[in-house]
Amino acid sequence: MITKSIIKQIASLRQQKFRKELGLFVVEGRKMVEELLRSDFETVGLYATEIFLNSYPSFADAEVVSEMQMEQMSGQDTPPGILAVVRIPEQGDINTSSPYVLALDGIANPGNMGTLLRTAEWFGIRDVVCSQDCVELWNPKTVQATMGSLFRVKVWKVDLAAYLRQAKAEGKAIYGALLEGEDLFQMKEKPEGVIVIGSESHGIRAEILPCITHPITIPRMGGSATESLNAAVAGGIIMAEMAK
Amino acid sequence: MITKSIIKQIASLRQQKFRKELGLFVVEGRKMVEELLRSDFETVGLYATEIFLNSYPSFADAEVVSEMQMEQMSGQDTPPGILAVVRIPEQGDINTSSPYVLALDGIANPGNMGTLLRTAEWFGIRDVVCSQDCVELWNPKTVQATMGSLFRVKVWKVDLAAYLRQAKAEGKAIYGALLEGEDLFQMKEKPEGVIVIGSESHGIRAEILPCITHPITIPRMGGSATESLNAAVAGGIIMAEMAK
Repeated sequence: MITKSIIKQIASLRQQKFRKELGLFVVEGRKMVEELLRSDFETVGLYATEIFLNSYPSFADAEVVSEMQMEQMSGQDTPPGILAVVRIPEQGDINTSSPYVLALDGIANPGNMGTLLRTAEWFGIRDVVCSQDCVELWNPKTVQATMGSLFRVKVWKVDLAAYLRQAKAEGKAIYGALLEGEDLFQMKEKPEGVIVIGSESHGIRAEILPCITHPITIPRMGGSATESLNAAVAGGIIMAEMAK
Repeated sequence: MITKSIIKQIASLRQQKFRKELGLFVVEGRKMVEELLRSDFETVGLYATEIFLNSYPSFADAEVVSEMQMEQMSGQDTPPGILAVVRIPEQGDINTSSPYVLALDGIANPGNMGTLLRTAEWFGIRDVVCSQDCVELWNPKTVQATMGSLFRVKVWKVDLAAYLRQAKAEGKAIYGALLEGEDLFQMKEKPEGVIVIGSESHGIRAEILPCITHPITIPRMGGSATESLNAAVAGGIIMAEMAK
């Protein structure tokens, strides 16, 4: 039987402070939990309502909780009826393997962060490095927006400037979307390397600019008065173009 | 002097019901208000705090309100200090002019809706048709996510199936992202037409599928286990490819 103190602890995982303290995060919803259970992540608790289990009896391993208990644990307005508590994995040494690495510089919006991981995986990018000030990966909104990609894509929080300086020194191409750059759609050569996406409000930070070896621009059409693209959309367009 | 009843009325515009009843919506933040004032939209009220006006004296036309009054009116956690009340324009007859029209089928997420408009404008698409069940355009989150594009892109809510049947009958190309389609990146011919983006959870609805003359697919790379892309990202990648 689930206890009041465990329910309280799970509810506390909505806050970053407690995720950090306990080293745990929450995954909700059938699809997300399915992806979790297929992954290497360690599930430390799995809870479902009877109504959910009637529809999806394959989750019989889950501990049954009442609707009210689920509502107390869930961070969602409409709890989907299944919730897992998952151990935050330790960040190992950087060990990238895909031809392109995605580098996120100060992405602050959880939805953008999750969407960028989801898109990266779609285009075969399995390695993501993030600056220390990127939004936390275990935030429920980020987790949701990844649609499961966070269980498969490797993510490292790093000193991004130091990482990029080293990658540049190793002769890797460092791509960065800037206002003045080569037309993305005209690029002939696309050597392996790192694709840097800047923050929603400030773009790529000044400290990192000297590392960019391949400044690129997504051309704007038809006298558009828009100043910029959404960071996740810009990232998607660049990753699509590189992956071709 | 602003009255309590006006403050209450402005605060009520956070709810769709009152936006519809009063025919008004709210725009917040310096950049958004600047874009508004450059547009054809009718501003019926403009309010700013003294702190804001000290930093941006060019908004001297705004009526000064106290910090507390602004907090009561604002729908944002951290009110940016300037807020406009704007008349919802009447939807005229459909009258598209750009070579490609964006058609949104059941987009439910306000952020995606706004981002799609922003991206459309970037790529020179100035005409957007939406199914009746798309999220409302005047939702504060949608307004914010457009970053001003909603003041310049034309949007019509329509019977989307009827609209597409007619466009098809007129010989226009109707593009739709489907799991089984032509590889977007291999397309040679891209005749003018309509780009249909399906909803986040169900894709393009069955009723509309027979209208699609050009089924397209964004190829997935590297054994990705992701089932789909975010609707705004998929839309961005398709619009980028068509606009080239």
